[in-house]
Amino acid sequence: MRPVLHCALTALALLFFVDAATAADDVPLPPLSIASQGSFFVGGRDVSSSTLSSVPRHVPVGTITVDQMYVHYEIPVDAGNRYPLTLIHGCCQTGKTWETTPDGRMGWDEYFLRKGYPVYVVDQAARGRSAFDPSSINAAKTGKMKPGDLPLVFSAGHEAAWSVFRFGPKYPDVFPGMQFPLEAQDEFWKQMVPDWSEALPTPNPTVPDLSLLAQRLNGTILISHSQSGIYPFQAATIDTQGIEGIVALEPGECPDAHRDMRVFAKIPILVLFGDNIKGSPRWAPRLKQCRAFVHAANIGGINAELILLPEVGIPGNSHMMMQDKNNLQVADWMLDWIGKHVGERK
Amino acid sequence: MRPVLHCALTALALLFFVDAATAADDVPLPPLSIASQGSFFVGGRDVSSSTLSSVPRHVPVGTITVDQMYVHYEIPVDAGNRYPLTLIHGCCQTGKTWETTPDGRMGWDEYFLRKGYPVYVVDQAARGRSAFDPSSINAAKTGKMKPGDLPLVFSAGHEAAWSVFRFGPKYPDVFPGMQFPLEAQDEFWKQMVPDWSEALPTPNPTVPDLSLLAQRLNGTILISHSQSGIYPFQAATIDTQGIEGIVALEPGECPDAHRDMRVFAKIPILVLFGDNIKGSPRWAPRLKQCRAFVHAANIGGINAELILLPEVGIPGNSHMMMQDKNNLQVADWMLDWIGKHVGERK
Repeated sequence: MRPVLHCALTALALLFFVDAATAADDVPLPPLSIASQGSFFVGGRDVSSSTLSSVPRHVPVGTITVDQMYVHYEIPVDAGNRYPLTLIHGCCQTGKTWETTPDGRMGWDEYFLRKGYPVYVVDQAARGRSAFDPSSINAAKTGKMKPGDLPLVFSAGHEAAWSVFRFGPKYPDVFPGMQFPLEAQDEFWKQMVPDWSEALPTPNPTVPDLSLLAQRLNGTILISHSQSGIYPFQAATIDTQGIEGIVALEPGECPDAHRDMRVFAKIPILVLFGDNIKGSPRWAPRLKQCRAFVHAANIGGINAELILLPEVGIPGNSHMMMQDKNNLQVADWMLDWIGKHVGERK
Repeated sequence: MRPVLHCALTALALLFFVDAATAADDVPLPPLSIASQGSFFVGGRDVSSSTLSSVPRHVPVGTITVDQMYVHYEIPVDAGNRYPLTLIHGCCQTGKTWETTPDGRMGWDEYFLRKGYPVYVVDQAARGRSAFDPSSINAAKTGKMKPGDLPLVFSAGHEAAWSVFRFGPKYPDVFPGMQFPLEAQDEFWKQMVPDWSEALPTPNPTVPDLSLLAQRLNGTILISHSQSGIYPFQAATIDTQGIEGIVALEPGECPDAHRDMRVFAKIPILVLFGDNIKGSPRWAPRLKQCRAFVHAANIGGINAELILLPEVGIPGNSHMMMQDKNNLQVADWMLDWIGKHVGERK
C-alpha cells in the first residue's frame, strides 16, 4: 500500500475508533426503531425417501424439503436508500456469528441496523435453521447403506479451531494484542455446530439461494465469512442481478485468478483480512491466492481491493473480527468502504 | 364447561377478534421500538471425542460443546412489569415456528412484542442453532462403531406430518374451516428440520436449560408446543425459581395425574388445544391424558385449566395455531388468560 494512502486510512481509522468507542460506552443506547422484521426461506427442493426415520412411531417413507436457506431480517426506519447487507456465516457456525458477541457486546447485526442498514442474516443450507437430509443416517442404521457411505460431517474441536480462528499460533497460546474476547471463550464454543458442507453438491446450495435472495431484495451487498467467502462470487457467476457489492471477510477461497472476470465488472469487491496471517499455515496461502485474484481482477478493470486490517491501523484482529473487542471499529471501517465504493440505491 | 362461562368467553373472543383483525389490516404498522435485543446460550457441556470429523483436513480428536440452548430475545421499550414470554418450539421445528407465518403474516414473536412483552425464542438443544454431537456418525463411517448404534434421528415427511399437524384427517384431505394457510404449505415444509430428541438423554437437555433461563430472567412464562409440552413441567420439577406460569400448546405429554403436584402450587397452568382433536389417533389420547392431569392438579389445589379453542368460540385451528390465519386471535385469547392468571411482576 502506498504510504500516503496508508497514512490517510490510519487517520480515518482513528476517527472511526472514536465513533465505535462512543457506542461501547456504558450510557444506555437509544431504542432501536424497526420498520419491519421477520424471516423466510429461499430455495429448497423436495426429496422422497424411505429412510426418513429410524424411530418406530415416525413413518420412514415420505417427502422432505432440503437445500433451502433460512433468512432473518430487520429493517430500520431510517434505512433511506441504503442497500441491505446480507450476512453469511462461515464453517461450523450459524447466523449467530453476527449477533451478540460471546462477551455480551453488540453484534454487527444490530450495529448495522443502528447505522441505518437493512440487515439480512442467513443460516447456510443444511445448517442451523436450514434443514439437512438425515436419510443416509437411517439408511446406514437399518443396513440399507454401507456405513462407509455416510455423509462427510464434522465438528471443529476447540483445540484445532484455536489456530484456525487465529486466537494464537497453537492451542492454548495467544497472539500478543489479541482482540478476541478469550475470557468468554466458553460462550464462543457454544456457537459451533456440525458442518455438512462437505456432503453437499458443488456449488453449495447456499450459492443459488444467495442468488435468489439478491434478486428478491432487488439489490444487496453480500458479506461473506471464511467458508462462505467464495459463495458471493459463485452467486454472481450464476446471475449478477441484485448483487451490488461483495465483502469477503477472510475468505477460505477467492475466485481463480485465471477466470473470466467480466461478470464482476459492475460489482465493487473488498477482501478483508485481520492480523497474524503471516506464518499461519491455514491463512497465509489463502491470502496469497486472494491477492492473485485481486491483482488479476484489477488488471481486468474490476474495482477490487484486498486489505489487511493492520495496514489501516487496526491491529490484533482474529478470524472472528465481527466478535473481536474492536468489532465496531472494524465495522465502521467496512461501512466507510461500502459508502465510498458501493454507495446507495439510485 | 358451564354455559354461562362459555358464553362470556365467546363474547370475549369476539372482542379479541376485532383487536386481531385490526392488526391484520393493510394499514402499515407503526415501527417497533426495541429497548434491547440479542442472543446467548444457556447450559452446555464439553465432550471429548476422537471422531469429530471424517473430513481429512479437519482434525478428528478434540473437544466440542453440546446440550446448550440458543436463545434470541427482544425487549420492547414499553415492557413495564410484564414477565418475558419464553417460546419453545416442538418436534422437527426450530424457533422459526414463532416468526413470520408461511404466508408472510406476523408471527407471535413480533405480536407479543407489540403487546409489550419481552420475547425469548429458543432453539431446543441439538436443533437449529443449538449444536448436536456428530461423533457417532463419523464413528460408524470409519468402522469404530456398529451402524446399528447410530443415533435415532428422524425427519417428518410432509404426508405423515399432515395428519399430525391436523391439517386434515389424512394427506391431502383438509378439515372444513381449516385455519392453517395451506396455500403456503411449501414455505411451511421448509421450516421442518431433522430431530435428534430421541438420541438425547431424559430429560431432554432443553429442560435444565429452560430452568437456567428462567432463573437468569428472574421470572418468565414458559410457552411450550407439542414435543416440548412437558418440558416446562419438568423444568419446574428441577427448580420452580423463575417459572411464573406455564402455557402448554397442544402438549405431546402432560405430567402424570398421579404425581406429586405440590411443585406447581404457585404456577398458573394453561393447557390449550385447537380443533378437530376428537377422532385424531395422535391427539385424542393426549387430550385425555392432559385432562386427567388438569383434573388431578385442580383437586390438589393447583390453578390449572385445559381449554379447547372451539369451546371459547375459536374454531378451525390446526396444531400450528401460532401460524394459523387467526393466529393473532388465538394470541389475544392467550394473553388475556396470562393477564388474568399470571399478572405482572410485583
